[in-house]
Amino acid sequence: MNPSTVIVGKKDTMRYVTACITLFNRGEREIVLRARGRWIKNCVDTVMLLRKSFYHDLRIKEVSIGSDVLEHDEGRRRYVSYMEIRIER
Amino acid sequence: MNPSTVIVGKKDTMRYVTACITLFNRGEREIVLRARGRWIKNCVDTVMLLRKSFYHDLRIKEVSIGSDVLEHDEGRRRYVSYMEIRIER
Repeated sequence: MNPSTVIVGKKDTMRYVTACITLFNRGEREIVLRARGRWIKNCVDTVMLLRKSFYHDLRIKEVSIGSDVLEHDEGRRRYVSYMEIRIER
Repeated sequence: MNPSTVIVGKKDTMRYVTACITLFNRGEREIVLRARGRWIKNCVDTVMLLRKSFYHDLRIKEVSIGSDVLEHDEGRRRYVSYMEIRIER
């Protein structure tokens, strides 16, 4: 079983921060944050805010990037960059 | 850089199969297929069809499952299971 993945999108950064805090409080030690395209910035912001304000010893275990291939209607195919950050408290 | 990830959803299985074939033809050796919730079945179907009809020596390198945490409006939070299958030709 992989660690829980928090999908970071357009919501306020604080929303993703509280999602992570909830998971940590539930006993999870590792969380993956995942964002696509222009929300990648929010992913990084979430981790930085988490570390600055809540878990000073938060460890960034892995940062990875890649490309999601999405199938749309009418046979169109779209490529979207993504970033995943694995954190551990 | 991670291998390309084909996001498998509600479209016909053949659509995801052709997406994989396109990536392989472009020189990629590994692909990750990723699906959530009720589309997990499509993810498995895609790999089985790929192997049966196109790449008889397709190797399944890793199958992993986990949980995506999604933030919705009004502060609602939803947990969706996902599956990832890493294949190599």
